Amino acid sequence: MGYPDTFEGFVVDSPKTWNKFHRSELKPKPFEDHDVDVEIECCGVCGSDVHTVTGGWGDFEGPLCVGHEVVGKAVNVGKFVKGIKKGDRVGVGAQVWACLKCDICESRNENYCPHQIDTYNAKYEDGSSAHGGWANYIRAHEYFVFRIPDALKSEIAAPLLCAGITTYSPLVRAGVGPGKRVGVVGIGGLGHLALQFSKALGAETYALTHSPNKTDDAKALGAMDVIVTTEDNWADKYAFKFDFVLNCSDMTSEFDLKTYMSILKVGGQFHMVGLPDKPLPEMKAFDFVSNAAKLTGSHLGNHQEMEAMLQLAADKGIAPKVETIDISEEGCKQAVERVKVNDVRYRFTLTGFNNVFGTGK
Amino acid sequence: MGYPDTFEGFVVDSPKTWNKFHRSELKPKPFEDHDVDVEIECCGVCGSDVHTVTGGWGDFEGPLCVGHEVVGKAVNVGKFVKGIKKGDRVGVGAQVWACLKCDICESRNENYCPHQIDTYNAKYEDGSSAHGGWANYIRAHEYFVFRIPDALKSEIAAPLLCAGITTYSPLVRAGVGPGKRVGVVGIGGLGHLALQFSKALGAETYALTHSPNKTDDAKALGAMDVIVTTEDNWADKYAFKFDFVLNCSDMTSEFDLKTYMSILKVGGQFHMVGLPDKPLPEMKAFDFVSNAAKLTGSHLGNHQEMEAMLQLAADKGIAPKVETIDISEEGCKQAVERVKVNDVRYRFTLTGFNNVFGTGK
Repeated sequence: MGYPDTFEGFVVDSPKTWNKFHRSELKPKPFEDHDVDVEIECCGVCGSDVHTVTGGWGDFEGPLCVGHEVVGKAVNVGKFVKGIKKGDRVGVGAQVWACLKCDICESRNENYCPHQIDTYNAKYEDGSSAHGGWANYIRAHEYFVFRIPDALKSEIAAPLLCAGITTYSPLVRAGVGPGKRVGVVGIGGLGHLALQFSKALGAETYALTHSPNKTDDAKALGAMDVIVTTEDNWADKYAFKFDFVLNCSDMTSEFDLKTYMSILKVGGQFHMVGLPDKPLPEMKAFDFVSNAAKLTGSHLGNHQEMEAMLQLAADKGIAPKVETIDISEEGCKQAVERVKVNDVRYRFTLTGFNNVFGTGK
Repeated sequence: MGYPDTFEGFVVDSPKTWNKFHRSELKPKPFEDHDVDVEIECCGVCGSDVHTVTGGWGDFEGPLCVGHEVVGKAVNVGKFVKGIKKGDRVGVGAQVWACLKCDICESRNENYCPHQIDTYNAKYEDGSSAHGGWANYIRAHEYFVFRIPDALKSEIAAPLLCAGITTYSPLVRAGVGPGKRVGVVGIGGLGHLALQFSKALGAETYALTHSPNKTDDAKALGAMDVIVTTEDNWADKYAFKFDFVLNCSDMTSEFDLKTYMSILKVGGQFHMVGLPDKPLPEMKAFDFVSNAAKLTGSHLGNHQEMEAMLQLAADKGIAPKVETIDISEEGCKQAVERVKVNDVRYRFTLTGFNNVFGTGK
């Protein structure tokens, strides 16, 4: 068998063998009238991929093909699809389906639809599995397939489809813009994009990091100043100073959260988009009282935000710093191992798909 | 000595003797030009009083005179005081001072001023102690002294000065009104007022309680329906249904918080005004992701909200259900003991101050 009946990807079999990738056939969902098939050119490597293959976010049923920052070419387009044509360069992020008819979807919150299907490690209602983008093809509902602006190179666009929307959406939903002071915690795959978006939206943007050696990078990415959170009493001079803090670290389980929250203005948000495997540190209700801080998080963004984010990136030259790795068993292994130990500045994109899979002809 | 040099109140000496009240002389702060002295007619009994005397919120230095729901008569008015005249019936809540010049105060958030002085168990910058209202007199800055509308009886007005503002302020700051669905968790001293305010503001209001026997009371207070949170899977049918949940329980430490948060619409607030002694239950960052729930809390309300709340109560007949207890060593003991075991529906006001202290002449 082969495309369009089966796809082929690099998979792992269980959390115990999380870095042992091998090539495997994948059975996609049946093709329907709103679906788009994408022949994959490249795919980003996301922290989520590592949390998932290692079992940190829970066990899974192998074979598992991860990858949800997909860029490629639309090669098959269902008959009801509007806006995407065969041959278009398109992207798929971390969600491939939602019901699009519940109250939540109707309010443009399809990224919170209770029936949503993640791009991988998920099952459709008919029992079909959703497979990720470390593969030759991906199939997704048209609402979750986005045209990539010409100004964005594919390996640059790829990380925007998860890391980009994950950081952009909470900023715009919180009304970040001129006159607002924003802190970005954790200058990694997510944070280095958050700095750029926050700056581009017009906010006075600060980086918060426990790595003083990221100071120059953070400033180059848009931070007007860098707060080093390993210094004693670092938060004292910033008490009540920030409208919004976007926490991009996935080590929040190790934070003194109360101290981080103390830098917020009255009613400000400490918004988590990095998701640690471990529970949050112990908190008291009292910790929210001194400034009415709001502790919250979010999941991706909606369709309109994805389009706006890609266009903003194209218009303002916002780009992840990307190291490319050719996809292979060894390449996938290297990618997840290096992300796991944080040996990445700041994002990997797996490339060379056409060579490996014999596609792109 | 005696008034105006010293006051006299019912005090406890340490958390170990939290229910052993005795009469003691109290030294107030020096009288200044913005101060108002209030001869106390009655004072509410707040959960905070019990958390404080028992040491649940931390140790304290006795003798401690609690009480921060004070109603009485202005008997001395500093020369710069505007808006309060000698002889006015006035109230004092849980805050007696703020700097009124920092950014936070300037933004009408003096209830979050980092220099604020609580009504009791607090010290002024000059080292003077602030003493609560289970006493013959209280001294407070004019900004924290409020005229009581004529329509409100004193023992009814008293609980509004802490329990009222504590529940009213977060509702109005969250934009609660027509078209919003609000849940009030915990139908006690705070919650039974929250139901009335939420209804009066025009919201579709639900009570959430683990006590089915409070159903009739909750409906009479304004709940259109009552959700009994001891029933299996109680939250399932309310997933994504509430704009705002005001948690008035101080037993949040025992809650399955994730389940409570699941009833919020995307981006909705789970707002805590009850403050347990113990830490919150363990949470994961993931618990915020399925609906972008915001976990938050607040502290009292500002001057303008206090005035608006008292007027709304007067206009709409909003009233705490009050049982009065005559103040005495025994009366204070009975009040804190009964609040501690939740044997109150729904609020006590200590009365008879003039008889005990020989004031009111």
